[in-house]
Amino acid sequence: MKKLILYFLFILPYLIVGQELASPNGKLQMTFTLEAGVPTYQLSLDGKEVVKPSTLGLELKEMENLLDGFSIVDTEKSTYDETWNPVWGEQAEIRNHYNELFVQLKQDATERYVNLRFRLFDEGLGFRYEFPEQENLIYFVITEERTQFAMTGDHKAFWIPGDYDTQEYDYITSKLSEISSLMAGAITPNASQTPFSKTGVQTALMMKTDDGTYINIHEAALVEYSCMHLELDEENFVFESHLTPDAVGNKGYMQAPRNTPWRTIMASKNAGDILTSTITLNLNEPCAYEDTSWITPVKYIGVWWEMITGKSNWSYADVPSVKLEHTDFNSLTPNGKHAANTEKVQRYIDFAAAHGFSQVLVEGWNVGWEDWFGKSKDYVFDFLTPYPDFDVEGLRDYAAEKGVRLMMHHETSGAVRNYERHMDAAYQFMVDNNYNSVKSGYVGDIIPRGEYHYGQWLVNHYLYAVKKAAEYKIMVNAHEAVRPTGLSRTYPNLIGNESARGTEYEAFGGSNPDHTTILPFTRLIGGPMDYTPGIFEQDMSKLSSNNKSWVNTTIARQLALYVTMYSPLQMAADLPKHYEKHMDAFQFIKDVGIDWEKSLVLEAEPGDFVTYARKEKGTSNWFVGRTNDEQPRTSNISFDFLDAGKEYVMTLYGDAKDAHYKNNPKAYQIKKFRVNNKSKLSQYCAPGGGYAISIMEADKKGAKGLKRL
Amino acid sequence: MKKLILYFLFILPYLIVGQELASPNGKLQMTFTLEAGVPTYQLSLDGKEVVKPSTLGLELKEMENLLDGFSIVDTEKSTYDETWNPVWGEQAEIRNHYNELFVQLKQDATERYVNLRFRLFDEGLGFRYEFPEQENLIYFVITEERTQFAMTGDHKAFWIPGDYDTQEYDYITSKLSEISSLMAGAITPNASQTPFSKTGVQTALMMKTDDGTYINIHEAALVEYSCMHLELDEENFVFESHLTPDAVGNKGYMQAPRNTPWRTIMASKNAGDILTSTITLNLNEPCAYEDTSWITPVKYIGVWWEMITGKSNWSYADVPSVKLEHTDFNSLTPNGKHAANTEKVQRYIDFAAAHGFSQVLVEGWNVGWEDWFGKSKDYVFDFLTPYPDFDVEGLRDYAAEKGVRLMMHHETSGAVRNYERHMDAAYQFMVDNNYNSVKSGYVGDIIPRGEYHYGQWLVNHYLYAVKKAAEYKIMVNAHEAVRPTGLSRTYPNLIGNESARGTEYEAFGGSNPDHTTILPFTRLIGGPMDYTPGIFEQDMSKLSSNNKSWVNTTIARQLALYVTMYSPLQMAADLPKHYEKHMDAFQFIKDVGIDWEKSLVLEAEPGDFVTYARKEKGTSNWFVGRTNDEQPRTSNISFDFLDAGKEYVMTLYGDAKDAHYKNNPKAYQIKKFRVNNKSKLSQYCAPGGGYAISIMEADKKGAKGLKRL
Repeated sequence: MKKLILYFLFILPYLIVGQELASPNGKLQMTFTLEAGVPTYQLSLDGKEVVKPSTLGLELKEMENLLDGFSIVDTEKSTYDETWNPVWGEQAEIRNHYNELFVQLKQDATERYVNLRFRLFDEGLGFRYEFPEQENLIYFVITEERTQFAMTGDHKAFWIPGDYDTQEYDYITSKLSEISSLMAGAITPNASQTPFSKTGVQTALMMKTDDGTYINIHEAALVEYSCMHLELDEENFVFESHLTPDAVGNKGYMQAPRNTPWRTIMASKNAGDILTSTITLNLNEPCAYEDTSWITPVKYIGVWWEMITGKSNWSYADVPSVKLEHTDFNSLTPNGKHAANTEKVQRYIDFAAAHGFSQVLVEGWNVGWEDWFGKSKDYVFDFLTPYPDFDVEGLRDYAAEKGVRLMMHHETSGAVRNYERHMDAAYQFMVDNNYNSVKSGYVGDIIPRGEYHYGQWLVNHYLYAVKKAAEYKIMVNAHEAVRPTGLSRTYPNLIGNESARGTEYEAFGGSNPDHTTILPFTRLIGGPMDYTPGIFEQDMSKLSSNNKSWVNTTIARQLALYVTMYSPLQMAADLPKHYEKHMDAFQFIKDVGIDWEKSLVLEAEPGDFVTYARKEKGTSNWFVGRTNDEQPRTSNISFDFLDAGKEYVMTLYGDAKDAHYKNNPKAYQIKKFRVNNKSKLSQYCAPGGGYAISIMEADKKGAKGLKRL
Repeated sequence: MKKLILYFLFILPYLIVGQELASPNGKLQMTFTLEAGVPTYQLSLDGKEVVKPSTLGLELKEMENLLDGFSIVDTEKSTYDETWNPVWGEQAEIRNHYNELFVQLKQDATERYVNLRFRLFDEGLGFRYEFPEQENLIYFVITEERTQFAMTGDHKAFWIPGDYDTQEYDYITSKLSEISSLMAGAITPNASQTPFSKTGVQTALMMKTDDGTYINIHEAALVEYSCMHLELDEENFVFESHLTPDAVGNKGYMQAPRNTPWRTIMASKNAGDILTSTITLNLNEPCAYEDTSWITPVKYIGVWWEMITGKSNWSYADVPSVKLEHTDFNSLTPNGKHAANTEKVQRYIDFAAAHGFSQVLVEGWNVGWEDWFGKSKDYVFDFLTPYPDFDVEGLRDYAAEKGVRLMMHHETSGAVRNYERHMDAAYQFMVDNNYNSVKSGYVGDIIPRGEYHYGQWLVNHYLYAVKKAAEYKIMVNAHEAVRPTGLSRTYPNLIGNESARGTEYEAFGGSNPDHTTILPFTRLIGGPMDYTPGIFEQDMSKLSSNNKSWVNTTIARQLALYVTMYSPLQMAADLPKHYEKHMDAFQFIKDVGIDWEKSLVLEAEPGDFVTYARKEKGTSNWFVGRTNDEQPRTSNISFDFLDAGKEYVMTLYGDAKDAHYKNNPKAYQIKKFRVNNKSKLSQYCAPGGGYAISIMEADKKGAKGLKRL
């Protein structure tokens, strides 16, 4: 008997030691336990802790919380391994391979059930809460989600301030312990912003530990739920989820059966694994549309940069206010600076047609821009009525003759009810006038007042706009919307978002020269960004004498961004006349692909540099791009990704030896080489610089006389 | 010189004594002054003050207030006298006759302009603020309107608690000084309620002074503004406007040029003048529609009362929750109590056709009722999908064959974005299925959360729904919406609102027996009420054994309500089988008109009794109705409104001598008389009783053998 008891005591710890899960390649290991009835998980990489034991749960309104008092009803393990093909993307084929642990929990005192589903991929973990159909938990209001991510130390982090309304901040690189002291300085002015805490940050959050482990926290499949931020306990380096509230302070309205979004934690010794991970897409539902033939990547130019820089206006007249229901725009005196006019747009159409761009974005085409911003104006735009100098039908036909479309612009000014009221008519107008893609915007505080850009109310709206657009076979590129979380797998007509600090900020004071060495690790984790690069003229005072900004990047790095900032939507954002001064460099933008068979990370260090190589879908072309931070560096890559036995012509667009993003940004050099899969390159990258490379299969003639690399 | 100075000093008071305005008949007089730069008005009746000097102004957010520092730029007086014809109403022709004072004010320090427009009618004053187009006041946010109504004493008042979400309270009759001590008891439970102050009351507010002057305060033309309540300073008996806030506490978003709604003050020694006043309609804009041929009054029955009483259900199944996007309603087990089923509706159509009712309301026809209330559910109804037992097309055709239509029901559950998203499809569905009128509802707290039923956000929505309905030639009867303010002059497809404590409350515990002697002085000032009278069975336990409520009214008074509660929409609300027991009394409901050439008040004392006589449009028929409070009374009327030289047959439906709303409600007597314009009637009215009279021109045969009155 004594022996039996001793034996029992011996195995007891093993009985309650928890559920273990390993990734397919075994490198990541997760453990789930109940610690005194509190759901807890922990993650290790190669046997070393990456996430210390971290608790899970939710606080509810006017109801017992779902934090503790749980017991395990059942668990189930499974494996999944399939490939699927996205409509567009960085890869033509994506493998979805994970080991899953499904845990059914019961909160004994309240007889309520919560399930946890853990999926462990080779590069990271995803998990979510599931509320099954049940008697004692149907409608509930979340006052806070209490998901912890307990870090093992004072990691280096690349972060932006937690904020309910904007992500358009420069990234700060610091230790976790420094976040609170740096927060005030990090909160630079924005059209709409609601920072909430000196220790609150946004996701995707990128980190690097002292021993060289890269960690990334984000979410996937944000649907009918509030956007997650992270609140840091700076004593213990524990992050906890912090959801965006609504107008009355609640954080989620739920009806079971429902799932939360997935919370994702990637961990690898290799920074490139974070970039190439397909966890976010794999955790989303498969494509919801039967027919996706109307969805295609777009390379475009636009009447936009000249307004951003201050050279021209969105508005047609200089009156202090207008009322769409009353103002006769034909009777207003034009201010002479309205860029969206028929003649100018025709010139842009000509340029697009001449250089292979399929669409021309035009902002400021529709009435209402005279007082669109900062007035909390409800009926601000109607999305239908052009200004007197913008000939909708004439331009539609002119563009069509040249094989080009215009790209629609729907700035909502954050007046979301107004947009929804006009949405069907606005989409039909697009169809009637040969538009198939729309850039939407939500600049300024949200109306209904009290709601935030990232709350459940707006998360619902953004998806409503995408799903309704699909009824009209329209693609959506939503600026100022919530940052993406892989929804474009399910709704591939969501072809872009901005939802971070984009190229326009180069004209609003400039961005950090290392900005684009961080964005792929943060903003791009959830989906493509309409970064709109391609700026060849850095001195903003040349466009608008009042604008003292400087675009903190060399020309070579601007070209690189077409490769390093993945997006199915790519804009050549500068004015045609600036391209006409550098048609040799512009050639890269014309050549670069926008849809990819395969993508590889050749070099990557967040905050320092990123180098991608991508193979263009349906061709044998490859494109390579490197973005470099404020340090001069040398990039060393090999071309072993090329097909064996083939010869290629490579055109390199690189910084000149004396290039510098501030002092000498226009100094670039273009060189052609013959390359094959044995070639290597050692290339100088200037501060704020980089390089772009196009690689095309060679014929004897094209390769003649070229040096081999 | 001394003489000149003395002369100047003598007339100086007259120079600054203010602007005077008299009503066309001279009985009302208004004075406007600036008292130390503060706009002030005062109102007298027959030389005696009714409103003491009261200040005007507005508090603004993050801007100088518009309260003081004004000077008069200019004033202008004018007179207006025209008649117009409403599409439907209590009169076929309405005279709009007033004297107007228009005052242009300038706030000198801020160089901002505010205009005041005063219109003095024979029975009352209307005034509003106007913000002209100007440089220094364009966009502004109102934090409170500060319009005073300074009463001359501790008047008797008929009031309900000020509340941002409901008016469904029993009226309290008390002195102004008693309001605060009675407030707590006055706030009875409601599906959605937000009382805000122990001295806050709603409009229209009815009062009577000690010397017998009747005073009524309300507003007209509430458009794109927040609903006004009144906050009482109980020391001084001064009311001040208290607007409904939005989710963030602001009370109005304005862009000049704009006007506020009109604030109205009626004053008369004759209570009937308050009832017959057309000020509210006259202060609204003329009809906005060119074609109004599709707008017609409606007499209807409905599948409704049996659910209100608890006899049947709106819901089809007894499941705790449904999800419109997932639930297969065909697979649910019917609860067997779903009233809106094809067979029952056919019986109602038969009854309607047999008795001359043009429409049959059906509530509970559409999926979603299983969990429609109290869950803060966003996607709660789709307004399109019928339950499995409701045959939309079959019933449409069955009704059409019988010359009847169904009346649509759109319960929104307060989920307003959801309603707007579905609205076009829902209205088109109505057109496709031969519905031309809809009863809409807003039961429960508003979504977007934080908004209130009576804030600017919802005021905008209610009108949006009416204007969009007109595009589909649909009439709207909006329950739980903001109480009307005469908008049906401009948008005559707004044929009704509930927006007060209606007949349903008789089944929810009962209403005060004097309730309908007050409503015409309060709720009906702004527009008709869909009161849905006609209850013949008072004992609710006979319909549902759990329901202990009693309908506090005799049958005779129920008939009277068709005359005393003016509405172009009149429902015979009880179950057909209850009418079938009293077809003699029911005859009055069948006969009574619903659109009027002319309306007269024969007797009126708020809280005690109201007697109306109305001439039916397009006929020589007259109808008289008297509603009586809890006291037994005798009504004494004369028929001098009848055409001279004509003989009529009058059918009187009155209380029996021993009738009583509680003890003997079904005791009525029906008598026929011959009458002419010299006839008089002295008629007993029971507690909670009254009488109804139909008068039709006699032919010799019809009048034969009848006693003359």
